[in-house]
Amino acid sequence: MWRDLLPVGRHSDSGGYRRFAWTGADAECRAWFEEQALDRGLTHEVDRNGNQWAWLGDPRQGDAVVTGSHLDSVPDGGAFDGPLGVVSSFAALDELRARGARFDKPIGIVNFGDEEGARFGLACVGSRLSSGQLTVDQAHRLTDGDGVTLPQAMEAAGYDPEGIGADPERLARIGAFVELHVEQGRALDLSGDAVGIASAIWPHGRWRFDFRGEANHAGTTRLVDRRDPMLSYAETVLAARREARLAGAVATFGKISVEPNGVNAIPSLVRGWLDSRAEDQGTLDTVVGAIEEAARDHAQLHGVELDVVRESFTPVVEFEHALRDELARILGRGAAELKVPVLGTGAGHDAGILSGHVPTAMLFVRNPTGVSHSPAEHAAEDDCLAGVTALADVLEGLARR
Amino acid sequence: MWRDLLPVGRHSDSGGYRRFAWTGADAECRAWFEEQALDRGLTHEVDRNGNQWAWLGDPRQGDAVVTGSHLDSVPDGGAFDGPLGVVSSFAALDELRARGARFDKPIGIVNFGDEEGARFGLACVGSRLSSGQLTVDQAHRLTDGDGVTLPQAMEAAGYDPEGIGADPERLARIGAFVELHVEQGRALDLSGDAVGIASAIWPHGRWRFDFRGEANHAGTTRLVDRRDPMLSYAETVLAARREARLAGAVATFGKISVEPNGVNAIPSLVRGWLDSRAEDQGTLDTVVGAIEEAARDHAQLHGVELDVVRESFTPVVEFEHALRDELARILGRGAAELKVPVLGTGAGHDAGILSGHVPTAMLFVRNPTGVSHSPAEHAAEDDCLAGVTALADVLEGLARR
Repeated sequence: MWRDLLPVGRHSDSGGYRRFAWTGADAECRAWFEEQALDRGLTHEVDRNGNQWAWLGDPRQGDAVVTGSHLDSVPDGGAFDGPLGVVSSFAALDELRARGARFDKPIGIVNFGDEEGARFGLACVGSRLSSGQLTVDQAHRLTDGDGVTLPQAMEAAGYDPEGIGADPERLARIGAFVELHVEQGRALDLSGDAVGIASAIWPHGRWRFDFRGEANHAGTTRLVDRRDPMLSYAETVLAARREARLAGAVATFGKISVEPNGVNAIPSLVRGWLDSRAEDQGTLDTVVGAIEEAARDHAQLHGVELDVVRESFTPVVEFEHALRDELARILGRGAAELKVPVLGTGAGHDAGILSGHVPTAMLFVRNPTGVSHSPAEHAAEDDCLAGVTALADVLEGLARR
Repeated sequence: MWRDLLPVGRHSDSGGYRRFAWTGADAECRAWFEEQALDRGLTHEVDRNGNQWAWLGDPRQGDAVVTGSHLDSVPDGGAFDGPLGVVSSFAALDELRARGARFDKPIGIVNFGDEEGARFGLACVGSRLSSGQLTVDQAHRLTDGDGVTLPQAMEAAGYDPEGIGADPERLARIGAFVELHVEQGRALDLSGDAVGIASAIWPHGRWRFDFRGEANHAGTTRLVDRRDPMLSYAETVLAARREARLAGAVATFGKISVEPNGVNAIPSLVRGWLDSRAEDQGTLDTVVGAIEEAARDHAQLHGVELDVVRESFTPVVEFEHALRDELARILGRGAAELKVPVLGTGAGHDAGILSGHVPTAMLFVRNPTGVSHSPAEHAAEDDCLAGVTALADVLEGLARR
């Protein structure tokens, strides 16, 4: 099952995956999902927002137990982020059937569309649409790098974009949603555990820093006559690392755009994007405030204008404590009698989006290097199998309660 | 005359010029040049390398006095860099004719092709080809951002690329070449002079710094586990300014390329281009060496790999002292009795390329802000007229000697 999916959307140069929403690679992943569902005698459906569902039993019965994740990727992403959760969902169902388990409640497996946001710049589009956190108007304004809008991209992929939008009836059928995901960090590696339970997703945001100076000739302009925005940008990159370290948070400048971007031209504009996350809102506010202050101080001193725009923000997500505790109990008395650690994460997930609408939990599988969003992303086979067993235990336990 | 040329290749958003080699805007500039030549009864010809010439008298007579510059631009460049020299050449000829001057020697006006190198990444392609400093093989390997080669671009513009290459016979006909150019700096503004004479072009080079780290998730990777090449880049940008200031040189990081360039991804690669220039070779070596050392120190400390490649280098160009002194004498006893300052420049020019083959000099016209390679580039009308008179004096004096 895993083997079929491995070559899809893999780039021959980098070895990384480029499975962007509504592209050919995405269509191949979706075809794979449908095939897995039909092979197992499950009902397959695509909802109005392009999310794929595979059902054992009739979801209209309600109080369904749902698991799943996503199949799309970041640019040159790894093989595990997303697909591990979907593959493990089908494998857990296989394991439960082999155990002879019977279910009173409907069991669902979901593949949420466009989780990574690699094409349209917004993460978790599928789950945001269904939960109403992304309005139809906002969705219509999403465009990719070539100016193609989200509805145009859906239509080009053979989907009807007319019906997109909040889908509360479908979400109301779900009694519990559990997403399994490869850990994006080394907490489980450091604690020596194969599987963990999520406590919360850190608050995080993206800020765009526009440094405007004056374009000029790099060979003839005296240093004292320059208003070079690259210098203010460089100071701000270093300030971000310093402030994040002091606060125990993370802060990253990973994307930049420069005008005119010529070797012999002092830039007129350097635009840098800051991604920052911290355990709590107060810490995050402090870190970003200090970075912005350092940027303003340097810019002012060097005749550079600065605009800072917050492009997106997601507050802290605390997963439901009752469900989290239930998962810990189920895993403790399950086949493996696992004592699983509870850990926070800096990454956003569809589970985070759904948690405001449906009782939601997450399982993490150990990542020995912590590397993520890279072709080097990895999880050991034994740990993946432990994840499948843990997920099977959880589904069985929740379907029985 | 000047008015016809102003709208050509001007971009409506930025107000800057985008006159790139062998494009439509370039063709319009060339048509303008031919029209100016024919209107004045001059012979118009295009040489094998695409440089345009307008002749008064027969160049085959030899010992010709030639002036001119270029009409192409950097991306979003100003109106003066290049065109001021060409327009002033025609205007100086008009002034000499009005004075009733007669010439024993042939007088030429030239528009060198592709001086700025905005399209193919190499400056002064026309004069480099003619002087043999760019070989035919090297020229065939030049490609623009869309993968179009130089010969393909010439052919698309209606020129035969078969004959490109060194043209020593044509250069041997030139007894003296004088290029007038707007100053790219504030030396004349600071000294209070409208016109100056060039002493030398500073040695300059371009170095590519490739910082390679490890792509990873910006939200979940602990700071201590990161190998973030953006940090080493930022340190190097600041080191470049510091070292240039200490040595009285210039150093600029104006172009950058980042992979994967995602907001939530620590970069795997940050590629930055350094442009540095100094009065003499020893100073330049010291500055670039110190920048490279600072980059290596930081990279090593943070697990980042660094490769530094020198992409181009031009040694110091001293203009011929005899011709330079003759210009000073001519201007001192000319109509304006100008006492003109002699100044160095950090910018490359076709005059610099030709100076190894033909006695060459340059005149600069005051630039009140020093701004160059930008829509804000400017020279006052009175100063431009002073430049025309100075150039007319120089042409008359040289044609008579």
